[in-house]
Amino acid sequence: MRVGVIGLGSMGMGMAVSLVKAGHDVAGSDVRPAAVDAFVAAGGRAAADPGAAAEGARLVILMVVNQAQVEAVLFGPGGAVARLPQGAVVMLSATVPAAFTEALAARLAETGHLLLDAPVSGGAAKARDGQLTIMSSGPAAAYAVAEPVLAAVAATVYRLGDRPGIGSTVKTVNQLLAGVHIAAAAEAMALGTRAGADPRQLYEVISNSAGGSWMFQNRVPHMLDGDFTPLSSVEIFVKDLGLVLDTGRSLRFPLPIAAAAHQQFLAAAAAGHGGEDDAAVVKVYEGLAGIQVARAKE
Amino acid sequence: MRVGVIGLGSMGMGMAVSLVKAGHDVAGSDVRPAAVDAFVAAGGRAAADPGAAAEGARLVILMVVNQAQVEAVLFGPGGAVARLPQGAVVMLSATVPAAFTEALAARLAETGHLLLDAPVSGGAAKARDGQLTIMSSGPAAAYAVAEPVLAAVAATVYRLGDRPGIGSTVKTVNQLLAGVHIAAAAEAMALGTRAGADPRQLYEVISNSAGGSWMFQNRVPHMLDGDFTPLSSVEIFVKDLGLVLDTGRSLRFPLPIAAAAHQQFLAAAAAGHGGEDDAAVVKVYEGLAGIQVARAKE
Repeated sequence: MRVGVIGLGSMGMGMAVSLVKAGHDVAGSDVRPAAVDAFVAAGGRAAADPGAAAEGARLVILMVVNQAQVEAVLFGPGGAVARLPQGAVVMLSATVPAAFTEALAARLAETGHLLLDAPVSGGAAKARDGQLTIMSSGPAAAYAVAEPVLAAVAATVYRLGDRPGIGSTVKTVNQLLAGVHIAAAAEAMALGTRAGADPRQLYEVISNSAGGSWMFQNRVPHMLDGDFTPLSSVEIFVKDLGLVLDTGRSLRFPLPIAAAAHQQFLAAAAAGHGGEDDAAVVKVYEGLAGIQVARAKE
Repeated sequence: MRVGVIGLGSMGMGMAVSLVKAGHDVAGSDVRPAAVDAFVAAGGRAAADPGAAAEGARLVILMVVNQAQVEAVLFGPGGAVARLPQGAVVMLSATVPAAFTEALAARLAETGHLLLDAPVSGGAAKARDGQLTIMSSGPAAAYAVAEPVLAAVAATVYRLGDRPGIGSTVKTVNQLLAGVHIAAAAEAMALGTRAGADPRQLYEVISNSAGGSWMFQNRVPHMLDGDFTPLSSVEIFVKDLGLVLDTGRSLRFPLPIAAAAHQQFLAAAAAGHGGEDDAAVVKVYEGLAGIQVARAKE
């Protein structure tokens, strides 16, 4: 099956390569020529722009950063929609507001295209291994086309209904929790360190207690090792918790805990850590209190 | 071995009964006569006051609500210290500030008694089954006495050092995370419901995604069922997050996320839900937005 992948960052590249491995004919597009070259080296075809990736495709995956980029790659110069065949599916895997997803589905219907709302969870390693979790919604006709693509890139596909927007809503709720849990893990580890507890003991005890979370388990080791190589960056949560808060604002729904966590990611970005791993939010607390979780009780 | 248990709430009763089952001679004390009667029916001895529970004991467990009650049962009228044998251990299992625990250890040393800092995690069911997790610290001499008691009440005993206060610090950090995770779970489930997602689908997806936490897994079912029978109440987190914030204040350490979560538990208590299960913090969001997580998409 002919598939286009627009956006070859760590997530999009992983999905595109998984599709190549599954035997599909995949054209990849990215603003960075080096990313396209790497995809060609992995067995993919180069597309000069999103329109070229869409040419002849039954499905295009959008794995770009935000709503503005989705707009640009679909409807901007060299955009995908103008060259996408009738009846083809736009699989929207970027994290965007549910209201945007819903409006986009209506707009694509006018040009004879289907939208599959399909944000993902799992990180770069699972993308590379074709083991993502996908929180999807959309019409049966879109799933009929997308089935082999979903099978190639995901270990788990949640089908949440036939209305585009539900997938984005569930992803938004997940990001609220993920972001709050990372910032809370930083706050907790820094408090414990300041109070004189051994950070590695804290990690072990809380991993096995009622205070545990998926993010605590996954991100605290970065804090303990002082290794902030970005697997997912502080800026991603500045964006994603921003999207969560925008959703709350448009629904007139207060989100005080998400708002507090967002401020801590903003503080980390303000201090110059935006490009580091999101666990670097701990540096906000470390800097204020003159402690280091990684260096305590070595 | 002769043991006293002071405070026969659901946690203390579970520990006391586990000790009886393990063959110890256990005297139980509580301000509520009905609790003492229930303990006698389970094979324990009644103690008229904390002093009577301490009489002849090698160890007394304190499982009361807060620092003020610890003061009262140890040093107040009919208190335990006056009748506790020399060399006996006070096993402090209430959640209290680490600074209080440290000061108490020094004070008990003056009367020839040892303190084992031993806050617990696990809830009433695990207390009943002798399967608690204990976050402990204290001198080797205290452990030497406490060993058979710890074996009877706990599945896991973390020994975190010889200084009383470390156990309390680790418990405080755990409660920070536990409280934030419950309030964040409420915020997330309510937002998703307001945005039109199916709450049971949300629960399933997020339980298996990066947004998951021990508390999300455990408390969201109470929200989905609308069952707020108190296993642990809103008031417990008004207290425990209050203790977390007091710790931050005395260390001059800012805790913006814990503070936001504390305000939501206070809001729940203000609306009359203080005695309900802590998952009732979701009612704050439900009340504002006119939704119900339990009744959405039935």
